Amino acid sequence: MADLSRRLAAETLGTALLLATVVGSGIMAETLTQDIALALLCNTLATGAILVVLITMLGPISGAHFNPAVSLVMAMRGELKGRELGLYILVQIMGGMVGVWIAHAMFAQPLLQASTHIRTGGSQLLSEGVATFGLIAVILAGIRFRTETVPWLVGLYITAAYWFTASTSFANPAVTVARALSNTFAGIRPVDAPLFILAQFLGALLALALMGWLLQPQDKPA
Amino acid sequence: MADLSRRLAAETLGTALLLATVVGSGIMAETLTQDIALALLCNTLATGAILVVLITMLGPISGAHFNPAVSLVMAMRGELKGRELGLYILVQIMGGMVGVWIAHAMFAQPLLQASTHIRTGGSQLLSEGVATFGLIAVILAGIRFRTETVPWLVGLYITAAYWFTASTSFANPAVTVARALSNTFAGIRPVDAPLFILAQFLGALLALALMGWLLQPQDKPA
Amino acid sequence: MADLSRRLAAETLGTALLLATVVGSGIMAETLTQDIALALLCNTLATGAILVVLITMLGPISGAHFNPAVSLVMAMRGELKGRELGLYILVQIMGGMVGVWIAHAMFAQPLLQASTHIRTGGSQLLSEGVATFGLIAVILAGIRFRTETVPWLVGLYITAAYWFTASTSFANPAVTVARALSNTFAGIRPVDAPLFILAQFLGALLALALMGWLLQPQDKPA
Amino acid sequence: MADLSRRLAAETLGTALLLATVVGSGIMAETLTQDIALALLCNTLATGAILVVLITMLGPISGAHFNPAVSLVMAMRGELKGRELGLYILVQIMGGMVGVWIAHAMFAQPLLQASTHIRTGGSQLLSEGVATFGLIAVILAGIRFRTETVPWLVGLYITAAYWFTASTSFANPAVTVARALSNTFAGIRPVDAPLFILAQFLGALLALALMGWLLQPQDKPA
Repeated sequence: MADLSRRLAAETLGTALLLATVVGSGIMAETLTQDIALALLCNTLATGAILVVLITMLGPISGAHFNPAVSLVMAMRGELKGRELGLYILVQIMGGMVGVWIAHAMFAQPLLQASTHIRTGGSQLLSEGVATFGLIAVILAGIRFRTETVPWLVGLYITAAYWFTASTSFANPAVTVARALSNTFAGIRPVDAPLFILAQFLGALLALALMGWLLQPQDKPA
Repeated sequence: MADLSRRLAAETLGTALLLATVVGSGIMAETLTQDIALALLCNTLATGAILVVLITMLGPISGAHFNPAVSLVMAMRGELKGRELGLYILVQIMGGMVGVWIAHAMFAQPLLQASTHIRTGGSQLLSEGVATFGLIAVILAGIRFRTETVPWLVGLYITAAYWFTASTSFANPAVTVARALSNTFAGIRPVDAPLFILAQFLGALLALALMGWLLQPQDKPA
Repeated sequence: MADLSRRLAAETLGTALLLATVVGSGIMAETLTQDIALALLCNTLATGAILVVLITMLGPISGAHFNPAVSLVMAMRGELKGRELGLYILVQIMGGMVGVWIAHAMFAQPLLQASTHIRTGGSQLLSEGVATFGLIAVILAGIRFRTETVPWLVGLYITAAYWFTASTSFANPAVTVARALSNTFAGIRPVDAPLFILAQFLGALLALALMGWLLQPQDKPA
Repeated sequence: MADLSRRLAAETLGTALLLATVVGSGIMAETLTQDIALALLCNTLATGAILVVLITMLGPISGAHFNPAVSLVMAMRGELKGRELGLYILVQIMGGMVGVWIAHAMFAQPLLQASTHIRTGGSQLLSEGVATFGLIAVILAGIRFRTETVPWLVGLYITAAYWFTASTSFANPAVTVARALSNTFAGIRPVDAPLFILAQFLGALLALALMGWLLQPQDKPA
């Protein structure tokens, strides 16, 4: 692990590039096609691919969380101190916002926007709970058994989760805040964000509890 | 390997997430596009991706079968006791059903459904036999030569088999039972399920026999 | 390496599954969509995925050539005896034909067909020469530097070559013969096959000559 | 590392195959579909796949730059001498042009063309700066922490960057020159090329500066 300033820089850079990809590829896709499934497919591939890249390149520096739900789980496992957790979450949110603005600038859009994309209702919230539960479960199992596979596991998991959840799997409070600031393909109405974030943290805590039992320390990896 | 209760939990969790992905991504895709090839492509990518993830994360706990045909083959190779085989199959079927219901709930559909999707005839059954033959052959060769590649081999094999078989390659009796309970893109009429399952077990046994000869224990891996 | 009978069985099985995938996924795709680019994309993904799988699972048994041009190059490098070369090519062609018939049976088509798909002209032949040149170059470099990556290199190379050549990159005489026997998406008119095969062998020999110079034995891998 | 003549041959071959893929797959895709997102998706997959292949197979010979911006950064890090840098850039540009002509020949197009595809404006230039910044950052981090992942990181990064930038991420001066010589899907008007190249070098230098701080030599890889 690097010193704290570089860890925070890595979290900022990674979350910014992640959001630039999520929002930018959504704008590109909806500009080029009328078919929403095709647009979501292109959005999915770009997001999954950049996650593998960012986690491989920044994981050795900061852990490559890019996600307050991941950082909270790591803090509860004792791998992040309380003050570090606060700073991680702060720069993740700031980095995500910067990433959205970079995407807007690259596509010649107004920098400051607010989404009007309605994402509400029990099914959406269940989707976010399931999506984040799965994400945390995947990360904890990957760390436990084969650390070097974690970048791929996260990229592939999100690739699948874009499609198997009704919400397209935000699964990340910093991503949720940032996407509220873009009135494009990937946006979410600001008023819908808080319940998304609540569902995400609940899913994460459920995964931490279940995997704490499922992944016993005495087991040997295969 | 973990103790039996955790192994059964891993099989339940994995099969549930697999079916939530197969059925959920099918619903998402058919909702977003009129083009059936595109819908199947999105369904394929989600399924292939989640298989790599689930087998990597749960393989060290339970073997990550998620499939009664795989568990039967492992029992015949002496790697699973008779009572364990029965319990594995039981929780795979239960987990698959739960996964379908989770998908229905995430997409605001009635939980309990029965498919009306007709999948019958000799070509469909041949497809299931070939698909399961290939799946078991891939797994046995992967275990024999390079165990750590098995998650990728299975994910990529199913990605191909969705397209090269006329049935889109169920290749899994628990998946077949579960998909009978969803009247959506991925469904199969309950009355068509038994012959699918029979063809799957026959394909699996044929692969076990052939690979038993092809993969001689004295050979060295490359 | 296994004994010769099992090596020949592995070449037969692998080439059959490869052709079942190439032809079967082509039929599936053209049945489900009107968009030819989308059909070719689905055909591409299935082919690339199965190549990674088949080479990983059968490489340790037979070398996983599935391709007379590859076997010829290996014989010229002294890794296959003259009689073995003849038998490899024979079972590759037979396996490919069986694979096509299995695909036809799975999709309820007449087993015996002859393609009417015209693929002729200098651009097509140049495409096949370039495609096979690249394939052999990739294999020789992969073997030289990182053997365990060869299945991925071949699968990814063919994924690209389906698109960057005008012929969709057959790059394989056994595949060419087999595809002449299917009047579906992946077919080629029998009368066009001999020049395809000639171009493929010329590209392969050119790659063998160039890479013999480029890959000096005294160099150390990175 | 090989001797200089073979290193230059590897850079020529690699850049030629890269451009043949970028331009050839663009021609194939725009010929087969009306949907521009689908065409770009096929173009993306071919490009990402061939990058993984070419960097794996030629990296041990020449470093597999295929990109003057990468070679400049390597020279500034002391890994390439001044004269070598000049020769690398020369053969990259020549190789790229040859690759475009091979693509034209394979698709029966006039060899010599000039693009009329307008790519201008601040958003396009910002896109190229961001794209090349990200590419160099990914390469430097990959070399620092896990060298064997670099081919995958670059292939996946470009897969994402085709979509998250408004310019589809050329990120390479040699590619920019070569694409100016093709009036097809992937082209760029010659008059727009110089500012693209300037933005690319600026992005590369910014990444070199930032990563020089972020990747401290005393840190241990994870």
